[in-house]
Amino acid sequence: MSPNQDPKPPFLDFAKQGGLVPAIAQDHETGEVLMLAYMNEEAWERTLATKKAHYFSRSRKKLWLKGESSGKVQKVKEILIDCDDDTVVLKVEQVGRAACHTGRRSCFHKLVTEAGARVVGDLIFDPKEVYKK
Amino acid sequence: MSPNQDPKPPFLDFAKQGGLVPAIAQDHETGEVLMLAYMNEEAWERTLATKKAHYFSRSRKKLWLKGESSGKVQKVKEILIDCDDDTVVLKVEQVGRAACHTGRRSCFHKLVTEAGARVVGDLIFDPKEVYKK
Repeated sequence: MSPNQDPKPPFLDFAKQGGLVPAIAQDHETGEVLMLAYMNEEAWERTLATKKAHYFSRSRKKLWLKGESSGKVQKVKEILIDCDDDTVVLKVEQVGRAACHTGRRSCFHKLVTEAGARVVGDLIFDPKEVYKK
Repeated sequence: MSPNQDPKPPFLDFAKQGGLVPAIAQDHETGEVLMLAYMNEEAWERTLATKKAHYFSRSRKKLWLKGESSGKVQKVKEILIDCDDDTVVLKVEQVGRAACHTGRRSCFHKLVTEAGARVVGDLIFDPKEVYKK
């Protein structure tokens, strides 16, 4: 499809990358990138239908409502797809402020500089408390 | 590696996804997500060394200095990696303002709503002029 045409449902080309597309979750107010995960077509449809971010867990090989364990769901405020129809940006309100399973705001909390890499970003929650079995 | 430890060079786990990691380019001032592309280890090392974004073109199967054809390079201002060491965020200054080969600011210029999807975002350059053979 030409990149200048409006895409048709399901809007995304899932076949291109073996059924999955990367999805970037970004804070809808600050623009902070919170995480990157993957969606299959079911996760995409559930996200559109519920306005809560759903992904496909590649490790657990199943549909994953973000926050299903922690309660820290992502309320979807805006959805953008890219010129190639193979990547998604979700602008979200991150419930509980922290998106990362480590307890930090963003999964992107390791800063790489010429001196090396170091963890930045405060702990917002204690994962041992949140992910109790 | 524990997500709470500082990673060691090359910082990223290239083996996990067949030698490539996704890299999100984000405007360093506005936070706008400009594009997502992929890096192999060479692209990562060239990015660190030159502070210009390099990717691996999956279609051309070669190292790709972003802007090598258009002149619209990305000057890297900050580099973050994620909790799993398998995804990158580059905070960049986008030379020429437009990151997308369609001539738009961002590759993410298709807005999905309940009414369908539509192209948003003005043309900043004419691709026919910029990518002349």
